[in-house]
Amino acid sequence: MNPFPLEHVIESQQFDRDLLDIVFRTANQLKADLYGDRRYAKSLEGKILASLFYEPSTRTRFSFESAMLRLGGAVITTENAREFSSAAKGESLADSTRIMSGYADVIVMRHNEAGSASRAADISSIPVINAGDGAGQHPTQALLDVYTIADTFSGIKNLKIAMVGDLRYGRTVRSLAYLLTKYENVEIIFVSPPVCKMEGDIKAYLNKYEILWREETDLDAVSPEVDCIYMTRIQKERFHSLEDYNAAAGKYILTPERVQAMKPNAIIMHPLPRVNEIPKEVDNDPRARYFDQAQNGLFIRMALLYLLLNKDRNG
Amino acid sequence: MNPFPLEHVIESQQFDRDLLDIVFRTANQLKADLYGDRRYAKSLEGKILASLFYEPSTRTRFSFESAMLRLGGAVITTENAREFSSAAKGESLADSTRIMSGYADVIVMRHNEAGSASRAADISSIPVINAGDGAGQHPTQALLDVYTIADTFSGIKNLKIAMVGDLRYGRTVRSLAYLLTKYENVEIIFVSPPVCKMEGDIKAYLNKYEILWREETDLDAVSPEVDCIYMTRIQKERFHSLEDYNAAAGKYILTPERVQAMKPNAIIMHPLPRVNEIPKEVDNDPRARYFDQAQNGLFIRMALLYLLLNKDRNG
Amino acid sequence: MNPFPLEHVIESQQFDRDLLDIVFRTANQLKADLYGDRRYAKSLEGKILASLFYEPSTRTRFSFESAMLRLGGAVITTENAREFSSAAKGESLADSTRIMSGYADVIVMRHNEAGSASRAADISSIPVINAGDGAGQHPTQALLDVYTIADTFSGIKNLKIAMVGDLRYGRTVRSLAYLLTKYENVEIIFVSPPVCKMEGDIKAYLNKYEILWREETDLDAVSPEVDCIYMTRIQKERFHSLEDYNAAAGKYILTPERVQAMKPNAIIMHPLPRVNEIPKEVDNDPRARYFDQAQNGLFIRMALLYLLLNKDRNG
Repeated sequence: MNPFPLEHVIESQQFDRDLLDIVFRTANQLKADLYGDRRYAKSLEGKILASLFYEPSTRTRFSFESAMLRLGGAVITTENAREFSSAAKGESLADSTRIMSGYADVIVMRHNEAGSASRAADISSIPVINAGDGAGQHPTQALLDVYTIADTFSGIKNLKIAMVGDLRYGRTVRSLAYLLTKYENVEIIFVSPPVCKMEGDIKAYLNKYEILWREETDLDAVSPEVDCIYMTRIQKERFHSLEDYNAAAGKYILTPERVQAMKPNAIIMHPLPRVNEIPKEVDNDPRARYFDQAQNGLFIRMALLYLLLNKDRNG
Repeated sequence: MNPFPLEHVIESQQFDRDLLDIVFRTANQLKADLYGDRRYAKSLEGKILASLFYEPSTRTRFSFESAMLRLGGAVITTENAREFSSAAKGESLADSTRIMSGYADVIVMRHNEAGSASRAADISSIPVINAGDGAGQHPTQALLDVYTIADTFSGIKNLKIAMVGDLRYGRTVRSLAYLLTKYENVEIIFVSPPVCKMEGDIKAYLNKYEILWREETDLDAVSPEVDCIYMTRIQKERFHSLEDYNAAAGKYILTPERVQAMKPNAIIMHPLPRVNEIPKEVDNDPRARYFDQAQNGLFIRMALLYLLLNKDRNG
Repeated sequence: MNPFPLEHVIESQQFDRDLLDIVFRTANQLKADLYGDRRYAKSLEGKILASLFYEPSTRTRFSFESAMLRLGGAVITTENAREFSSAAKGESLADSTRIMSGYADVIVMRHNEAGSASRAADISSIPVINAGDGAGQHPTQALLDVYTIADTFSGIKNLKIAMVGDLRYGRTVRSLAYLLTKYENVEIIFVSPPVCKMEGDIKAYLNKYEILWREETDLDAVSPEVDCIYMTRIQKERFHSLEDYNAAAGKYILTPERVQAMKPNAIIMHPLPRVNEIPKEVDNDPRARYFDQAQNGLFIRMALLYLLLNKDRNG
C-alpha cells in the first residue's frame, strides 16, 4: 500500500529488511504473471528506459531492457555513452544526465568510475538505477543474489553460507555479506586464499549485527556443512607469482567430487561469467543454481522498474 | 488542413514562415499532449524509424528515438553505420539507403560528409531526416533553436539577439541567423573575436531581407541590451597561438556577473555540449534556458516525425 | 495446420520442399498483410527478439529487427556481442546463450566462427536463428534467394539459372545450388574464372538429384539463354597476381550491353553489397531484381519468426 520510498537505486545500503521484502514480493508477483496471465504486460506502456552504458555489459544491459519490455515499456540504448564525455567535447556527466532525463522516464547507468551513479542521481529529474559503477556498487546484482537464496529456501533463516574465492576485491560477496545482516540466524564462512581475504570493514559490520562468521582456506572442510556455496573467480593478477596462483586456484574449483560432498538441498551460486572455477559437469546437478540466479536478475529488475515508475505515476 | 509539403527534412532553407508555424504549432500540440491526456501516444503505432548514424551522437539519436517512441512508433538503430561503406565491402550510400528504405518508414541519418543526407533522400522511397551531415546542415537543431525563442517570447517580433563565440565555423548560429529572416523586426548582434567573425554570405542574406545587424567584439557592451544571448564554444584550433586563444576565450565566457547585467526577461541559449563558456553557477538563473532548449528538440522531432509520417498515411 | 517442425534455423539442409513451401506461403501471406489490412501487426506482441551479433552486419540485423517489429514484437540488440567472450572474462558461447535465452523468446545470432549457431542451439531453451556463421551457413539468405526466384516465376520449374563470379568461396551460390535440387527441371550454369569454380561436393549433390549443370567461363555465351543470372563479387585475394585478377574481373561484369542480350523476362539477382560487378546503369532495367531480393529478406524473416514463435505459443 505504501508507495515505494526510493527515488533512485544507487547502493545496497538503501535496502533495509522491509524494502527487501517489498522488492522480492513484487519480483515473485511479476514472475508468476510472466508465466501466467500477463496482467502486467502493459503496466509500463508509454514509459521509456534509457540505457547509458559507459562501458559495455551486454548481459546486464539485456537483463534491464528485457525487464522493461516485458512490462510493456520501451528502450533507448547506447553501449557508447563514453562518447558523451569525449575529450573533444568535454561534457560533464551532470549535463549529459540532465539532458537524458528529458528524453526518458528512467535511466539505467553503467560507468567505469565509482560514485558516478550517485552524481547522476543528484541532477536527474527521473529515477536513476546504478548498473555498476567501477569498483563501487552494483546493487541489482546484490538484490538478485539475496533473492535467489530467499527464493530457494522460502526465506533466509538458519542458513550457513560459504563465500568462496576472491573475497577481498569481489564486489558481489561484499554486498551479499552486507545484505545478509538483515536476516536472522545466518552464519557466513569466508573461504579464500590468504591473499584474497574478506576486508575488515565487512567483518566489523557483521559483528555489529551479531552475524556469526569464520574464515577458512580449505573448501573441502566447508562444503559438506553449508546450505549455500557462493563461488567467485580468483584473478591471477592478485598473486605475486604464477606459481602461487596455480597452487591456490585449484583449491577453489568446485569439482563434481566436491559437489558430491554437499548437502542434498544445498545450492551453488555464481555471479557469472565463470571461467573454470565451476566445471561444466556440475551444470546438470540440481544444486547448481547459477543460471536461475542470472534469470532472477530479470525478475528483480522488473520489480525495481515497476516500483520506481508506478510510484511516479501515482505520486 | 493542408498536408505537410515536405518529403524529406534536409536543410533549413526548406522552411519558410508558414512551414515554421506549422511545425511549431504541431510541437506545441504534441508537447501539451505529452503532459496531458496522451491522445497522440499511439499515433505512429506500426511505424519504424531507422537511425543510421555514421558517427555516434548519442544525444541527437536519443532525442529522435524518444520522439518516435513517445508517438507509439518503433526504432531500429545503429551507431556503426560506417561499417556499410567499409573499404572491404565498398557499398555506396545510395545502395545502403535503398535497402534500408525497405525496412523502415523513416530514416534519420547522421553522416560525416556534407551533402550525404541530400544524396540519400534522392534515392530513398521513405522520408529522410538529416541529423547533421559534417560541415553541412543540422536542420532540426536550427528549428529547435528558433522554436525556443518563439516559445519564450510568444512569437518572434521586436527582439534583439546576440550570437556569441565562434560565428565563422559554427553551424548552429549560421542556420539561426538564416531562419530569423523569416520574422519581423529582429535585430542581430554578432559578438566574436576577429578571427571567428560571421561570414559574408549570411550578412548579405540579412541585408537582402532588411534584417538589422552589427558586429561587436565586447560581450559586456552587448549583454545589457539584448533579449537573447546565444552562446557557442570557441575552439582553440581556430587561433594561431595559445596566447591569442587565452586572450580571446575569457572575454566570451558568460560569467554570473555578465548574467547579472542582462535584462530580467532575457534568455541564455547554447546548443550544448558546453565546456566552460557558461559556468555551472549560471544554471539556476531563470534566464538560463539551454536545458529547456535541448528538451525542445524532443518536441520539434516529434512534430517532424508526425507531420512526415501522417502525410504518408493519408497521401 | 501442422505445426512448423523446426525448433531452430541453422542451415539450408533443414529445408525440404514441403518446408520451403510452408515458409514461402507464410511469407506471401505476411507480405500481403503488410501492405493490406495489417491483421498480423500484433501477432508477436509480448515477444522479444535478442540480436546477438558477434560481428556487425547492419543490413542483416535491421532486416531481422524490422521483421520482428512489423509483427508487433520487441527487440534487444548488440553489435558488440564479442565482448561476452572477451579474453578478460573468457565466458563460453554456451553460457552466454543459456543466459540470453532467459531474457528473450528468440535469438538471432551472427558469429565469425562456423558452427557457432549450432552450438548455441544445442544449449538454448528458445529458438536460435543463424544469421551467418563465418565460412559456415547463412540460411535466411539462401531462403530469400530461392523465394525471389519462386516469386518471380510463380514457382520454380523449367528454369535455366546462371551463377556468376566467385563460385568456390561464395556461400550464397553454394546454398542456392543446394536448395534448387528441391525443384523440377532446373538447369544450372556455373560461370566463373577457373580459379573460382564451384566445388565438387555441390556438383556431386546435383548429379545425385539429376539436376543438369555445366560450366562456362564466358558470361556472354550464357546470358542470352538463361532465366536468371545470379551475380556475385569476385574477390581480388583469390588471384595469384593483380594482372590475372584484372584480366578475369572485367569478364564478369554485367554491363548494360550484356543485360540487353538477356531474355526480356529474365531476372538479375545479387546478394549485395555489390562493388562494380553490376553498374548502376542497370538498376533501372526491369530485369534488375536485387533490391527486391533484399526486400524479400524482410518477408522471409517475418515468416520464420512467425512460424517459430507461434508454434511455441500453441505447443
